[in-house]
Order: sequence, then C-alpha cells, then structure tokens
Amino acid sequence: MAVYTDITDEELETLLADFDLGAPVSFKGIAEGVENSNFLLETESGRFILTVYEKRVRSEDLPFFLGLMRWLAEHDYACATPVADRAGEISKSVRGKPCALVSFLPGLSVRRPGVAHCREAGRGLAELHRAADGFPMSRDNDLGRAAWAPMFARLKGQAEELKPGLADVIDADLAYLAANWPTDLPSGIVHADYFPDNVFFHGEAFAGTIDFYFACTDAFAYDIAVALNAWCFEADGSFNITAARAMLAGYEAVRPLSDAERAAIPVLAHGAALRFFLTRLHDWRATPAGALVKPKDPLEYERKLAVHRASKDLVLFGTARA
Amino acid sequence: MAVYTDITDEELETLLADFDLGAPVSFKGIAEGVENSNFLLETESGRFILTVYEKRVRSEDLPFFLGLMRWLAEHDYACATPVADRAGEISKSVRGKPCALVSFLPGLSVRRPGVAHCREAGRGLAELHRAADGFPMSRDNDLGRAAWAPMFARLKGQAEELKPGLADVIDADLAYLAANWPTDLPSGIVHADYFPDNVFFHGEAFAGTIDFYFACTDAFAYDIAVALNAWCFEADGSFNITAARAMLAGYEAVRPLSDAERAAIPVLAHGAALRFFLTRLHDWRATPAGALVKPKDPLEYERKLAVHRASKDLVLFGTARA
Repeated sequence: MAVYTDITDEELETLLADFDLGAPVSFKGIAEGVENSNFLLETESGRFILTVYEKRVRSEDLPFFLGLMRWLAEHDYACATPVADRAGEISKSVRGKPCALVSFLPGLSVRRPGVAHCREAGRGLAELHRAADGFPMSRDNDLGRAAWAPMFARLKGQAEELKPGLADVIDADLAYLAANWPTDLPSGIVHADYFPDNVFFHGEAFAGTIDFYFACTDAFAYDIAVALNAWCFEADGSFNITAARAMLAGYEAVRPLSDAERAAIPVLAHGAALRFFLTRLHDWRATPAGALVKPKDPLEYERKLAVHRASKDLVLFGTARA
Repeated sequence: MAVYTDITDEELETLLADFDLGAPVSFKGIAEGVENSNFLLETESGRFILTVYEKRVRSEDLPFFLGLMRWLAEHDYACATPVADRAGEISKSVRGKPCALVSFLPGLSVRRPGVAHCREAGRGLAELHRAADGFPMSRDNDLGRAAWAPMFARLKGQAEELKPGLADVIDADLAYLAANWPTDLPSGIVHADYFPDNVFFHGEAFAGTIDFYFACTDAFAYDIAVALNAWCFEADGSFNITAARAMLAGYEAVRPLSDAERAAIPVLAHGAALRFFLTRLHDWRATPAGALVKPKDPLEYERKLAVHRASKDLVLFGTARA
C-alpha cells in the first residue's frame, strides 16, 4: 500500500480540465498498489482511479500498459479501462509525474484465498491470456530470468545480513535455474504480478484484475507459476496442493496446458519465487524510514524458495502427468 | 493520513454480518484521518466509511463522538452519520479495536483555502455550534489550556533539540496564556480540530465536516481560533487578514460574536497554536520509523506562535472593535 504523491485540489482541477468528466465530487488517496500512488476519484460522471506512476514504472512503458488495459477491456476482460481526455490522450501528467485515469473496477480482494478462490483466479488468469491474444505490442520481461544474476550480484551483502550463508544458497538457485530454465513454451502477454491483492471477487466469483504495471511478454506458464507462489502457500509456509490443483483446473477450463507447460511449472515456480525474493530484498533496504509504504518481507519468499529447492522432482504441484 | 490497521475480507464479513447493508462490493483503505484507520466500503446498499479507532481515541469517549455525529446529522448538519447494526449498536469492534460505520459524505477538502473557502468554512463552523446546541452529553477538552504545562514539562528536551532556546520561549507562552486566558466565554460543543482536511466543499460551497474525534465542550471562540490558525496562514508563514476577516464574517452570518469573544480571539489563537505545536512535537518523536503515517512538522506551529507572540495587542485579526 502506498500513497507517495500528494495531489492538491488545484492540481486535480487542472488535470480534469482536459477531460469531459464533470466536476470532482470526492477524491481520496487509497492504500492500493505498492509501486504507484492511487486515488479514488468521483466526478459528476462516475468513479475512477487516478494512478500516479512512481519510481519503478518508466513512462516509456506506459503506452504498453495502458494500451493493454484498453485492449483487454475491449475484448471483454474485466479490468480497469484507461479514460481518454478530449484530445484522445490516455497518458497524462500531474505534479511532473506520469499519470492515468482509469475506470473504477468494483470487487474485493481476498486476504487468505480458499480453494474456490484459487480455482476462480486460475480461470481469470487464463481468460487474461486468451483476451490479450492479438494485442499488437510486446514488452520484454525486465525482471525475467536473465535479470536475476546481475540483480543478485548487487544484493549479496544484504542477503548475508538477512540470513548468514544465504548468498551461496541463492547462487546455487541461480545456477540450477540457468541450467534448467525451459525455453520454447507457449508465450504471450502475461500479468507477471497476479497476486491476491490484484484480483477482485464478488463473493467467490472472479470479478476482475488490476495493476498491469509488470505486464510483459513471457511464457504463460510463468504467469501461472507466479500465481501458484502467491495464492497457494499457507501462512505457515506450507504449500497447499489442493489449492494449486484447483488453480490449475480453473486455468485449464479456459486454456488447457501442454505437457511441456505442466512439466515446467515447478522450475518456473522456483524461478518466480527467486524473482520476488530479489525485488523484496532490494526494497527492504531501499525503503526510506517514514515512507508511506510497508516493505514486504523478503523472508516470506526465501521460505517459498526452500520449498521449491526441496521438490525439484516435479511431484510438488501434482503437475507431472502419469 | 494513516492506515494503521489491516482488515481482512473475513473480518469485514464478520463485522457486516451484524448489519443489514447487504454484501460488500468494494473495500479500500483510504489516506484520511491522522489518528485513525479509515476504509471506504461499498455494499449493496450504499457507501460508508469504516473507522477503526487507534491509540489517541479512547473507547469510553466513543459514545460522545458517535452520539454527537448522530445528533448533528439529525439536526440537519452536513456530516457523516453513524450506522446502527441490527441490535441498534453503533459502537462496534474489529480485530480487537473499537470501530464504527458511518455514512459516506461526498465533497473535497481544499489544500490552500482561498478567501471564499474561509468564509464558507466560518459559516460551516457556526452552523456546527448551532446544530450541537442541546446535545445532552459533554466532554472536557483534555487538550485544553490546563493540559499544556504538564504536556510541555515532558517535551522540553525535544523542544530544545528542535530549536535551541525554545523551551524558555514556550515557558513564557505558558505564563502569558495562564495570566490572560479568558473565562466565561459562551461555551458548548466545539469541533476542536477544524482544519481544511476535515471540511468538505462542493466547488467553493461548504459541503460538510468530518472527524469529530477531538470534539469536546469548550468556548466557541476557541474553535474559531483553532480554525483561524489552520486556514488563514499562508505557506510562507504570513497571516492573511483578509481570509481571517472572511472566516469571521462567514461565522457571524450564522452566530454573531459578543465583544468579549472578539476581544479574546488573539489570545485564544495564541493558545490554540501552542496546543497543536505541543501535540506535533510529541508525535514528531513518537512516530515509529516505517509507520504508515507522516508526522506533521511542529515548526509550522512554532512559526504561527511567533506571529501570535508579536501581536498581543489585538490588532492582528482586526477583531478589536473600534
């Protein structure tokens, strides 16, 4: 949760002057999104989210992110849609930072997803992969496998501080992943941050996805691996295989996986756990004291890594076909 | 702005089970209120604010605060109204903390109020004083004049750290205020925290007041003094006498001030500046690093104190009658 940027009523008025949305009725900073500042805006014509893009989002990537959201909404995927101003622009700026107004998406995220939520989330992810098919832009995954070793080279000291001996263990992860990383899996647009905070429900029914600011071009199965890590571990660090199977079943009801994709999921999940461990390790130290953001514990992902290290035999997810 | 407490979807469901508001549709932590955690909740039957009371609000004071809000709303004052559950309860609890659901109040707060806003804010404050007339409960101002000397006794070291020599200057303020503090002014329910963040507008028209969690029984003119400090200083520390006169004119259009009240405003404003200086000085050091809250700068109020020290002759506010 984060509200880094403060928007005054005057700045809001200046921004809204470019749109045909009527006068503002209410405007509140909301604790949603880790990377950006988000505001819930109500105007005479409806409700919107104003997202102000901070540090990690590069303005040159915005046409991809916003174009994707618009494409998905036009292809009946439940997600927020960017709103164009009178000149047709969706990429705007406020207080010298890039920003965009998107439609308000109702729904609640769940803190501790149950098996039914995991099934629905799997279905929602497959629908995203399907709806994005044909989207004409692409974007490399700059937090993909090739990025991890150079990232970790700068974080070794912090890893040792976190847990003595950890640097060698992570080096072994990197070597294992480099040797075993699958290539040639079916690829396309992936969300790459499909965590419970970013998925909305009505009751137990999937209601939509938010926060496409890590979306990129990568293997679909990598997106599933990120989601399995995020949704199917219990608070005590154990992996809930029933939830994982439900998520895969929900996914496959829309887009069946190939044998190669199924077989790759354990190593992809090992890599995906490393990716989130590394960025959390970085943020853990980089977050200034007093910032309006609570850095996420990197150790949560080190515990998930340990589970993956212990189960390289593909049994873990029940994903190996007989 | 603060979101201290995290509410899970399950905790929300448990809370809502006591109410007849239908299923939740959306739920977001909002950056509003310094002392409490606030969430914007939409259910099938409308929009509400869930306030979870943290540290400074004592649960034994809640019947006063919530009762006052209900009284004011019933007397046509524009403010959020507490919502009773099926058993008629408005004081609830979540995650072991007291909480309440109140109706959503639309409107925008202004960052840099203009003269027109000050006039309207004055009118809104007088309407509050009038609407509260007859409210059967009372509550001592535990941050009133009698509290300042004991508070400062514990903060002297911090004042010196902030600005060497400041402790003696504040001691002189305390002596001056003790000798000159008015008694027998017309009293009743005051808001006691009537800052621009707590007042909503539609355009330049007053739209309502929020955050009654410092409300207490005190001189009406003290409430005006708090508001003059909060609304009528420019960012450069200068006092905008045009804005102050507009605020008083707006107030008097609803509730004319007596000569004694007018004459007392400068010393009340001096004291009100000290009250906010002291609590900010306390919070400045007490806020843990990494908390989801940005402590307010005590020096802003020390600069206001300096203005009051220099203008004890009643000329400052143009409030002395010829």
